[in-house]
Amino acid sequence: MRALVFKDANLTLERDYPLPTPAAGEALIRVLRAGICNTDLEIVRGYLGFQGVLGHEFVGVVEEIYGDDAAKRYAHLKGQRVTGDINAACYQADCAYCQRGMTTHCPQRTTLGIVGRDGAFADYLMLPVENLYPVDAAISNEEAVFVEPLAANFEIFEQVHIKPTDSIAILGDGKMGQLAAQVLTLSGCEVLMIGKHEDKLDLAAQRGVRPHVLKDAQSFALAGGRRVDVVVECTGTAQGLEMAMRLTRPRGTLVLKSTVADKSTLDLAPIVIDEIRVQGSRCGPFAPALRALSLKTVDVLPLISASYTLDDGLAAFEKASQRGILKVQVDI
Amino acid sequence: MRALVFKDANLTLERDYPLPTPAAGEALIRVLRAGICNTDLEIVRGYLGFQGVLGHEFVGVVEEIYGDDAAKRYAHLKGQRVTGDINAACYQADCAYCQRGMTTHCPQRTTLGIVGRDGAFADYLMLPVENLYPVDAAISNEEAVFVEPLAANFEIFEQVHIKPTDSIAILGDGKMGQLAAQVLTLSGCEVLMIGKHEDKLDLAAQRGVRPHVLKDAQSFALAGGRRVDVVVECTGTAQGLEMAMRLTRPRGTLVLKSTVADKSTLDLAPIVIDEIRVQGSRCGPFAPALRALSLKTVDVLPLISASYTLDDGLAAFEKASQRGILKVQVDI
Repeated sequence: MRALVFKDANLTLERDYPLPTPAAGEALIRVLRAGICNTDLEIVRGYLGFQGVLGHEFVGVVEEIYGDDAAKRYAHLKGQRVTGDINAACYQADCAYCQRGMTTHCPQRTTLGIVGRDGAFADYLMLPVENLYPVDAAISNEEAVFVEPLAANFEIFEQVHIKPTDSIAILGDGKMGQLAAQVLTLSGCEVLMIGKHEDKLDLAAQRGVRPHVLKDAQSFALAGGRRVDVVVECTGTAQGLEMAMRLTRPRGTLVLKSTVADKSTLDLAPIVIDEIRVQGSRCGPFAPALRALSLKTVDVLPLISASYTLDDGLAAFEKASQRGILKVQVDI
Repeated sequence: MRALVFKDANLTLERDYPLPTPAAGEALIRVLRAGICNTDLEIVRGYLGFQGVLGHEFVGVVEEIYGDDAAKRYAHLKGQRVTGDINAACYQADCAYCQRGMTTHCPQRTTLGIVGRDGAFADYLMLPVENLYPVDAAISNEEAVFVEPLAANFEIFEQVHIKPTDSIAILGDGKMGQLAAQVLTLSGCEVLMIGKHEDKLDLAAQRGVRPHVLKDAQSFALAGGRRVDVVVECTGTAQGLEMAMRLTRPRGTLVLKSTVADKSTLDLAPIVIDEIRVQGSRCGPFAPALRALSLKTVDVLPLISASYTLDDGLAAFEKASQRGILKVQVDI
């Protein structure tokens, strides 16, 4: 099959990559469409040390279910359009995380296109059948590819009790910031987005977000910005995190949605002095994201900057790494 | 009066320092005894930029209450032995923090011996009467001086729901770590303390804490330590914080009790990947600390390494800054 493979520090399109090996309890999925995430770009830069097929945001069709038991219990999924949770947990009786339902933190887990499992930029991928979620007809393929990153933003509601009268600020107007803004406005809160790109802030403003253009590192302070209840850091930069600490009110919450890839030189004293809660946040629940897409309470299509075929997958990655580009999708 | 004054980067014992200026609603307190905190040592190293009389851990006697209204309402405090909350808030109707009861975060606040208000290493100090807490006869002066740092550790229970079956690890065997250990064991949890000093770990072990001697940076990892539910960082070092992140289980809580004075080069990615909650924690409630001292559920006297008179205050600071020394107190 065709596959976009990262190996020995190189990304290449292979045409005779082997099909995934059948495994009981897993489903073979014919990929329809997949999205490029910042994590993919970071892997290509050597972060995380993954080797194999990239990609974890996808929609596809279940072609085959392996193992008699799974094939019987999940027969209704065959031929279905699905997306899937990217963390494949061990579900063993002696796994403290799986037993608590914390499957996204299972220490034995593989993660689609990120850790120990080939990903979605290929004709086929494999995932455990338990991980799959049917995609209803109201959701297009283009939209369905956003389920995974939308779910990651619904995770914020799983972790933090956000009240409709709370003030929220999102730092960063990129892919993650845009999705965070759309999900967080569902809370009824006023959401402020601080970014550097007027066009991207305009996009968020169309969804009811209050935009603030950051002209230079000092402009927010100069604008006399009040401190807010919940700050969501989506820039993945040390400067973003420092601004986020200054912006969070005493006893407020700072949600970290992006890993700061470089080691950062940071003064963390404000966390202690202002008794801030810093909440790390990663993968989230798929069902709420699917419901939001189905109900059209979020509108992700304007976030697509470009689409490519898998045969042009290398160009897609090239495009996704350019400044100012939001989501790039690959039609398989 | 006599006072230990930090001014122009110098700590000196002044003998003719002016008495605090009377202010309505405030009480003049004759200081009996005061304790040296790491914050005092950091101020002397130039951190925080404070100039004036140092000291914020104290016990004293109310000599005078200024303002007719306050003198009438708080008449019962006159002649009483008291300790006091160190944050003097504005209590104004337009202060969002005071109106929410978050007086320790009032942006207009002064803080005894730390920000804009002379402190406790002097014959007299002044605090608003609302800040004062009578000290009952069951509590000695030596013990009463610990109320403020004990309260700061009760703050952890205000912020985090710690369940009796949670596992807790404290990083650091110094003053703060010892008090954190004593307070946290009250939860019924098993508390592990990781430190470098066998004698200090022994002290904690006498209070039911499980000690772990850290021989070098790697020894904890080599010991195959399991990851715990709640980690309390009391070392104030970048290495401590990095170990704390590794030690906190996925979705666990990392409490920051110490400001890392130096800017730190840190990889914060584990916070996001493991969805850790980092909770900054500073000043806390005095009443629970007084009740614990009164009931003898904590035992702070073994933490006193040395006592000096105020006339020997410079020697007290010299001693407190030596390695291996726990609490140094000053008898006024």
